[in-house]
Amino acid sequence: MYDYKAPLRDIDFTYFELLDYEQHLQSIPKYEDVTKDMVQAIWAESAKFAENVLAPINRTGDEEGCRWEDGQVFTPSGFKEAYQQYQEAGWQSLNYPVEEGGQGLPESMLLSNMEMRGSANWSWSSLIGFGGAGAKTIKGYGSQELQDKFLPKIISGEWLGTMCLTEPHCGTDLGLMKTKAVANADGTYSITGTKIFITSGDNDLAENIIHIVLAKVEGAPAGTAGISVFVVPKIGVNDDGSLGEPNGVTCGSIEHKMGIKGSATCVMNFDGAKGYLIGEENKGLRAMFLMMNAARIGTGLQGVCHAELGLQKSTGYARDRLQMRSLKGPQAPDSAADPIIVHPDVRRMLLTQKAFAEGGRMFVAYCAKLADLDNDADDTEVAKSAHEQLEFLTPILKAFLTEVGFESANLGMQCFGGHGYIREWGVEQNVRDCRISMLYEGTTGIQALDLLGRKVMGSQGEMMKPFIGEIKALCKANPDHELTQQLQALSKKWSEVTGQLGMAAMQDLDTVGAASVDYLMFSGYVVLAYFWAKAALLAESKIESASDKAFYQAKINTANFYFKRILPRTEGLAVSMTADASAVMAMSAEDFMLQI
Amino acid sequence: MYDYKAPLRDIDFTYFELLDYEQHLQSIPKYEDVTKDMVQAIWAESAKFAENVLAPINRTGDEEGCRWEDGQVFTPSGFKEAYQQYQEAGWQSLNYPVEEGGQGLPESMLLSNMEMRGSANWSWSSLIGFGGAGAKTIKGYGSQELQDKFLPKIISGEWLGTMCLTEPHCGTDLGLMKTKAVANADGTYSITGTKIFITSGDNDLAENIIHIVLAKVEGAPAGTAGISVFVVPKIGVNDDGSLGEPNGVTCGSIEHKMGIKGSATCVMNFDGAKGYLIGEENKGLRAMFLMMNAARIGTGLQGVCHAELGLQKSTGYARDRLQMRSLKGPQAPDSAADPIIVHPDVRRMLLTQKAFAEGGRMFVAYCAKLADLDNDADDTEVAKSAHEQLEFLTPILKAFLTEVGFESANLGMQCFGGHGYIREWGVEQNVRDCRISMLYEGTTGIQALDLLGRKVMGSQGEMMKPFIGEIKALCKANPDHELTQQLQALSKKWSEVTGQLGMAAMQDLDTVGAASVDYLMFSGYVVLAYFWAKAALLAESKIESASDKAFYQAKINTANFYFKRILPRTEGLAVSMTADASAVMAMSAEDFMLQI
Repeated sequence: MYDYKAPLRDIDFTYFELLDYEQHLQSIPKYEDVTKDMVQAIWAESAKFAENVLAPINRTGDEEGCRWEDGQVFTPSGFKEAYQQYQEAGWQSLNYPVEEGGQGLPESMLLSNMEMRGSANWSWSSLIGFGGAGAKTIKGYGSQELQDKFLPKIISGEWLGTMCLTEPHCGTDLGLMKTKAVANADGTYSITGTKIFITSGDNDLAENIIHIVLAKVEGAPAGTAGISVFVVPKIGVNDDGSLGEPNGVTCGSIEHKMGIKGSATCVMNFDGAKGYLIGEENKGLRAMFLMMNAARIGTGLQGVCHAELGLQKSTGYARDRLQMRSLKGPQAPDSAADPIIVHPDVRRMLLTQKAFAEGGRMFVAYCAKLADLDNDADDTEVAKSAHEQLEFLTPILKAFLTEVGFESANLGMQCFGGHGYIREWGVEQNVRDCRISMLYEGTTGIQALDLLGRKVMGSQGEMMKPFIGEIKALCKANPDHELTQQLQALSKKWSEVTGQLGMAAMQDLDTVGAASVDYLMFSGYVVLAYFWAKAALLAESKIESASDKAFYQAKINTANFYFKRILPRTEGLAVSMTADASAVMAMSAEDFMLQI
Repeated sequence: MYDYKAPLRDIDFTYFELLDYEQHLQSIPKYEDVTKDMVQAIWAESAKFAENVLAPINRTGDEEGCRWEDGQVFTPSGFKEAYQQYQEAGWQSLNYPVEEGGQGLPESMLLSNMEMRGSANWSWSSLIGFGGAGAKTIKGYGSQELQDKFLPKIISGEWLGTMCLTEPHCGTDLGLMKTKAVANADGTYSITGTKIFITSGDNDLAENIIHIVLAKVEGAPAGTAGISVFVVPKIGVNDDGSLGEPNGVTCGSIEHKMGIKGSATCVMNFDGAKGYLIGEENKGLRAMFLMMNAARIGTGLQGVCHAELGLQKSTGYARDRLQMRSLKGPQAPDSAADPIIVHPDVRRMLLTQKAFAEGGRMFVAYCAKLADLDNDADDTEVAKSAHEQLEFLTPILKAFLTEVGFESANLGMQCFGGHGYIREWGVEQNVRDCRISMLYEGTTGIQALDLLGRKVMGSQGEMMKPFIGEIKALCKANPDHELTQQLQALSKKWSEVTGQLGMAAMQDLDTVGAASVDYLMFSGYVVLAYFWAKAALLAESKIESASDKAFYQAKINTANFYFKRILPRTEGLAVSMTADASAVMAMSAEDFMLQI
């Protein structure tokens, strides 16, 4: 069934060869003890855990699903045992300072290890993933008292966490929120309301669950200016840190979904639950963005995970499955037919997946570096510029990588022909599990508006400049290369269409929304072109003296494929996004469909 | 939940206004009694059946699925009752001559009515759909005796049918077939082997199932030149037409699939089953193509069905769901937020679905007209040219419409945000049900090879000419229109890239496979551009005097959207397909992925 194998060689290439993580880690005093050997040893352990513990329960988790009984959620067989093993090995504390009981590794190392777990079993990974975002919020904005009360057991993994934002009538539009917080005499709040789509809102993995809940204090201003953020534990926590009474938080039901069936998506009812305010009243949005941005990089990574898994399964199948002969004549004359990998169209599907999986890995690793600098660089200027670049790249990362991840997952399935539609191969599960990534943590459309409206136009194009500067530098250093020449032209086009849209938006604001997704996808193709050009240049410089020449040759071939067969999509996007918005807006809402 | 409503106004527009079916039906003597009133009355009945009987069991069919017990398949609740009603009303005989007990309507009427049933419930529709293809094969190549034995009860719907082609090790590559036929003394054959992926291979809807089975007679030539085709009933049929003994045909299991769960996909075991040869030994391929081509038009239609269903559901939701304000300021100031249909990106998603659903309907209706002429035109020249044009368009219809149908189904789901991932809305089921259409009856890759390799290059481009001629005629008759000018340029480009690929293929045969899917998609966009231009021109000419101006205005708007926002995709395709095939072929199969 072509089980998942962690792509350690490529991860190593991406982080240490392409993006020089040795120098990167050295540049942050906090991480100067984190050596390449240490990182590789950790990756090797993650690979084992992903391959041997998580991959085997991926399909059974999908078949079995989560079970809801009397307000309690039970995860599929093996999920709890896997978590115990994970927690006892100290994985959950990887990304926390040593003095807080953590392993003292940067966020990039959380992400690079998370890729392997996510590829092996996204459902399981998502169940345990939100404690980190919550801890970040408590650390970033919570009082020392709150930090002392909740962080140690989140860090140790004894407790898990959630993010509670969405309500039935408000997803993107958090201003419509109805969950209420009423101040108690002791400084705490009573939280009442219903939240939906809460990943791992209840589970049987940990003894307590720490919810980060958005709510409105009575009398707060309307809209998002009146949102506050609270810590609400499932079970009350006594002053000595021991567990107290249940806290009026119950799971009302779990959703029946297309995929990630091993991950419980909960309706959470808060019925006068005791909540602790994080920061100040009505200042919740800031904290929420901190939390959301961390989640968005993780969701972008999900695109890479599904592309990688689909690629592995379909490559294995394409090498084994015998069907038809090459148009050029038999390539495996001793077999009844040729393996389907001889057929150009099958190769097109494999190479597309490879270009997105490996290209996406580079993109994530690059953003992870920015996240490290944003979090931990001593030089505040360095931190600030990393922060800004990350702000610009995050919507592209999240939306583009999940869109092409879904395309890849579908191509992986397509390589199997009709067999791909049958559950046993796991490729249709990969498509179903992937599909959520374009929806949660802000849909593709929302990311696109964030990119084009808020970031690019909001900064008059200033926020694009550092990344365009990197492209220019690469092209300038390698002026005679076919790929950099194409990249340079494309980068120029990127600036041009941005300018065109800016002008058009001054005439008609709907230009922004009408063009936004095309613009985001265009941007994603440019970003990936930068990484593929960089990878090809590096591979060309190393191949002669390398012992694993095939690895570098594959990089060069995939880069060529990306430039020749994928990148032309930008031509169509440039035309369609700059078309008049009236093509989208002309129809009245009533006339859209007459029969309903 | 936005239940399916048959788009009768648009069906009427497509068949009678755009494609002049009144004249078409009059032109075939056999159908000169088939009037517009009659057709509309039949459509109205189909609409009722689809909306009231089939749509309500679509989601329950998915939830419940088919059940396999001791070799017997049981369809989901309500499926059998729906079939009874359908069969008793005489629907199954719609497309057979009156003198054979049918309703005497042409194939186009089968397809136009099938659209409504397929949109309401594709699973149910697929269960009953293959009898027709089988009957066509028996009629086309079977002896009078075979026709008398099997056709009457297939026509009446008392018996259903299947197509048994695929085996575990051979899907596309039928030359590898292992199922054996051994001649008996009485002229029949004993059929032994295993067939997989047999839609409705067993079911509880009909008292007998007539399998059309591909097998190899002992000593037959190797490869496809040795394939014969047989009729194999589930239950033996006595000379007087009564049912005899079970015939050694059993359902070994049913597949667990991503979607179309109400449609049983069966493993069929033939264990010395009595089979009746259709036509001559080793001449089975010809009969199979007849059967496959009929099935391919139906599968292309499936793309339209899922696009239509997704469009209806997402349009309903987009009008009702309140979230955020238009960037231009409140559009529904009395509500807490604006309905999301005000957002340009939501409109982009709706219009894309609309362009593909309605454009696909035009394409199917056009091909249905060709099928009628191919089947029934008195003038053999007319029949022949219709046949050839249909041969050319069928792979485009099948692959392009299912690819854009899947894109549409996904966009329909995307309009729902996170709610789309939840089963209750039915939009994720629409995505899952749709996904098979790109795989069965020849994958997209296989259709693309058929189009570019066999049809276009095989005829030195001759087979394209009639359709290009139609485009030219439309453009010539309307020379000053923006859309026809764009169409004309695009049609020229179509010829150009075809020529370029032809030249490149002479140097390197792999060009064909490497370019084929891009070429097929390009061709599909051109074909749809022709229909949208034609529709816009017609709407413009009618709108002034029309009572339902909004309908025609919507056609004009959708055509503009298609030309401005969808058609630019051809620019990228033209570049990528003409790139050197080496970009696809350079990597050795071993180097594709090193870790597995």
